[in-house]
Amino acid sequence: MSATATATLTRLLISCPDRPGIVAAVSSLLSDLGLNIVSSHQHSTDPGDGTFFMRMEFTPDGVSREELERRFAAEVGEPFEMEWHMWDTRRRKRMAILVSRYDHCLLDLLWRWRRDQLEADVALVASNHPDLRADVEAFGLPYEHVPVPRGGKPAAESTLAELLAQAQVDVVVLARYMQILSGDFLRAVDAPVINIHHSFLPAFAGAGPYERAKERGVKLIGATAHYVTEELDAGPIIEQDVIRVSHRDSAADLTRLGADIERIVFARAVQWHCEDRVLVHGNTTVVF
Amino acid sequence: MSATATATLTRLLISCPDRPGIVAAVSSLLSDLGLNIVSSHQHSTDPGDGTFFMRMEFTPDGVSREELERRFAAEVGEPFEMEWHMWDTRRRKRMAILVSRYDHCLLDLLWRWRRDQLEADVALVASNHPDLRADVEAFGLPYEHVPVPRGGKPAAESTLAELLAQAQVDVVVLARYMQILSGDFLRAVDAPVINIHHSFLPAFAGAGPYERAKERGVKLIGATAHYVTEELDAGPIIEQDVIRVSHRDSAADLTRLGADIERIVFARAVQWHCEDRVLVHGNTTVVF
Amino acid sequence: MSATATATLTRLLISCPDRPGIVAAVSSLLSDLGLNIVSSHQHSTDPGDGTFFMRMEFTPDGVSREELERRFAAEVGEPFEMEWHMWDTRRRKRMAILVSRYDHCLLDLLWRWRRDQLEADVALVASNHPDLRADVEAFGLPYEHVPVPRGGKPAAESTLAELLAQAQVDVVVLARYMQILSGDFLRAVDAPVINIHHSFLPAFAGAGPYERAKERGVKLIGATAHYVTEELDAGPIIEQDVIRVSHRDSAADLTRLGADIERIVFARAVQWHCEDRVLVHGNTTVVF
Amino acid sequence: MSATATATLTRLLISCPDRPGIVAAVSSLLSDLGLNIVSSHQHSTDPGDGTFFMRMEFTPDGVSREELERRFAAEVGEPFEMEWHMWDTRRRKRMAILVSRYDHCLLDLLWRWRRDQLEADVALVASNHPDLRADVEAFGLPYEHVPVPRGGKPAAESTLAELLAQAQVDVVVLARYMQILSGDFLRAVDAPVINIHHSFLPAFAGAGPYERAKERGVKLIGATAHYVTEELDAGPIIEQDVIRVSHRDSAADLTRLGADIERIVFARAVQWHCEDRVLVHGNTTVVF
Repeated sequence: MSATATATLTRLLISCPDRPGIVAAVSSLLSDLGLNIVSSHQHSTDPGDGTFFMRMEFTPDGVSREELERRFAAEVGEPFEMEWHMWDTRRRKRMAILVSRYDHCLLDLLWRWRRDQLEADVALVASNHPDLRADVEAFGLPYEHVPVPRGGKPAAESTLAELLAQAQVDVVVLARYMQILSGDFLRAVDAPVINIHHSFLPAFAGAGPYERAKERGVKLIGATAHYVTEELDAGPIIEQDVIRVSHRDSAADLTRLGADIERIVFARAVQWHCEDRVLVHGNTTVVF
Repeated sequence: MSATATATLTRLLISCPDRPGIVAAVSSLLSDLGLNIVSSHQHSTDPGDGTFFMRMEFTPDGVSREELERRFAAEVGEPFEMEWHMWDTRRRKRMAILVSRYDHCLLDLLWRWRRDQLEADVALVASNHPDLRADVEAFGLPYEHVPVPRGGKPAAESTLAELLAQAQVDVVVLARYMQILSGDFLRAVDAPVINIHHSFLPAFAGAGPYERAKERGVKLIGATAHYVTEELDAGPIIEQDVIRVSHRDSAADLTRLGADIERIVFARAVQWHCEDRVLVHGNTTVVF
Repeated sequence: MSATATATLTRLLISCPDRPGIVAAVSSLLSDLGLNIVSSHQHSTDPGDGTFFMRMEFTPDGVSREELERRFAAEVGEPFEMEWHMWDTRRRKRMAILVSRYDHCLLDLLWRWRRDQLEADVALVASNHPDLRADVEAFGLPYEHVPVPRGGKPAAESTLAELLAQAQVDVVVLARYMQILSGDFLRAVDAPVINIHHSFLPAFAGAGPYERAKERGVKLIGATAHYVTEELDAGPIIEQDVIRVSHRDSAADLTRLGADIERIVFARAVQWHCEDRVLVHGNTTVVF
Repeated sequence: MSATATATLTRLLISCPDRPGIVAAVSSLLSDLGLNIVSSHQHSTDPGDGTFFMRMEFTPDGVSREELERRFAAEVGEPFEMEWHMWDTRRRKRMAILVSRYDHCLLDLLWRWRRDQLEADVALVASNHPDLRADVEAFGLPYEHVPVPRGGKPAAESTLAELLAQAQVDVVVLARYMQILSGDFLRAVDAPVINIHHSFLPAFAGAGPYERAKERGVKLIGATAHYVTEELDAGPIIEQDVIRVSHRDSAADLTRLGADIERIVFARAVQWHCEDRVLVHGNTTVVF
């Protein structure tokens, strides 16, 4: 998959009931407007009677965004009952990172951000612990400490939601943030939230997955990046991967070995999201 | 790991409370008896206060098996409170294969058997369906059809147990045998029973794992080979592996793709068991 | 990726210089003709100045194939300087399998064919050895023994080419056929030839890859499926995969372990080819 | 494999001609001295006529290191013609890191060092470029800039060798150090040198592996950690791994994707070396 695009492109994401003529309608309109389609991926859950998904990238030249969106809505979006949106690669996504005490997913993401491998700006790092302040500030980024004392979760979530609103974030990523987020918070944030869970979901949902993996004697451990929904560890899965372990590995070894797969799975999911490669379909995802 | 040994060897498998001197005691006795240790693997769950596991292979020359077992029991086995057994590679394990209608795990195993890649003889193939008779008989092997009519399971299990007893099997392997085995049957058989489950356990235990994997939108599917216990899909795991899937794959595709990983995981587990590489530790395994 | 299609579809494969309007032109023509695009994948090596590749599947109803091809050629193919062809899934590809003495790739492919997992009919199995006749005939397939005596290769190739021509094959697959094919033979056959090489090319091209892998002490061994060109082991790669090995594995173990990865890589490549997923681009492939 | 040991242990590494009685002799001596064997692994390239390798860990209590080494040499080492050495886990290995401009392998290793996941102290980071000074100093570590001007390589190597000698390093690791080291330098350093090469060796040895992988159209890219010998990219391989790529990935994408596999393979190799798990056997390794 292509790295951070260097040229400016417009991305179009579509989901709609599948029926004949969608690709022709979309591509003809873009062609009429003098726009060159640079890449296109589509998927249908069931041709003729399913849901149709598409991701297109095209050059944005020669027509204003307003004109483009107006004509697209009128000539294609409404007739085909599409959910759609466009995103300009000139505009980078504003990302907030929430973290607790584990540093591996956080540092890995910041390192990729510094190398310009994510199509995102880090607007904010917030944590319920003060521990990682120095690490984050070394990247020239602000670190917000929002403690969550026993009984103080609603207030903490409210503070956090306000910070995220002020920062105008497009996406929130949980780099091993060890707090369960309430439905109220998720609704207040109103942006996609991506979590990394340290097991191969749906195995070992909930707390202590490495300990439970050791007890069960599995031969592979995994990590799962998913969108957060109100139901814990049950949201649409974006990416998963695994690593081999054996009887020689203690639960502490699993934690250490798992950290490598966690940060890689997490980084892939965040990058794919920022590149608008991920479309949600019920409780699953289409990843182009 | 080494293929079917060509030379004759004796294998010694040990589990006992860990404490100083075990390796010295075992290796000194073997040395005194003029036996050459060819390979040795050990594992301790916690040196000093855990369980010690060992697998040794040595040349069997120059001392009778009776003498060897007598001295081992007296000088090492009893003092160290060992569970132990020895197995001569001259004697191949007698294996029964139970199967239903899916042929992939069965044929794969028979093909490996014909290539002499398993340290086992196939004593018997039995099925609750008549479908695979021709395939099995083409390998020159007997095929027992033991139907399991509604309400007739106890009788069928009784017939099956008798067939296994007559065939004097050392191990029973379930090559996608779609019947739940009762505790009574397992006790009657009194030999290790290996099953292949078509998911990455503990995810999707029970029926319909590929359908449920599709619904959950996982990005990898897996297979798990495990010893059968009375509790369904909960026995000690011998081996697991996974294969990547995507939104493009239907549940039927998962079934097709999964067949490849099922038969490979199953074959590895059966081979390792026949080579005495697998020691059970509570509900987990040590695989040397 | 989807299994053998059950519905009838027409597949369109395109490669041409990239420039604006290709997708619009193709999809508008299909839409005008009342054809429903069921899937579409495209790739450009460099938007604006590269090569454009596309694979589309559409329902073939309501227009004759002649009309369709005529209009496509005139309105799209020629204006955009395309290389293109269409394939009807009603017509299954006729496949010839060449094999020597190793049976694993052959039997695996025949088993998938019997399960109807390849969009192909096996027209012919030919071998330079008589060994595998019984295995092949058990599948109800003809087995042609074409020996290649020392000095008799041109004559053998000529016999083989005639058999392939009579069988009107669309594709030839080498299931561990241990003879180097001459350029003359490849030109005479004039159909794609797929080989499985038992290494992770370009490592260990040529003879004895497992022995050389053992000597070099690699920690993974692999297999490579590729289109055959006149230069040995240098044709466009379709698929590769690897398996982990260790110092414990002898060269014989590598051969045994590698067989599993060989047959899986080979089967994937053959299936993808038969499903028209593979487009050649110079010495590489685009696999949709 | 177990993480950084918390208890103090002595490690014994042996290689010698294989013959009967080695394990008995070693374990009996340790038992006589009251030492408890905590783990033991052995490998024989050919029982009876090959080379025998062993790694043992035992508690060091109750006998002085001098006494232990004296008796071991006299009673076991000499009679069995062993090459052997012992290492006390109380003493951490002193590691020098050489780096050029790519930061991914360096930062990954420093992060693991800070988490105490390597059994090593970083004695020194040296580079032929000034770029990474701030990153290294942020870890509280010294950064030595040793430029290698055109024609100035012998002088630079001499400076570097002196720095390494002063720092009394036990191991040198090349975290993408883009200079070929001379035989003279390697002999002067007289410590193991570990390199990470950005291809699946022996494929794409030499310069520009990702570009050449893209040209060849491989479907997997890899990384190889190996001991450095005078012959470029030809030393004993410690670890390798791969990652899947496709026609969608440019050479720049391969570089980005490969960085993840490079740093993981490199970290594994460095960790295993520091834990004395790697024994060299000719041009290959035994990794326990």
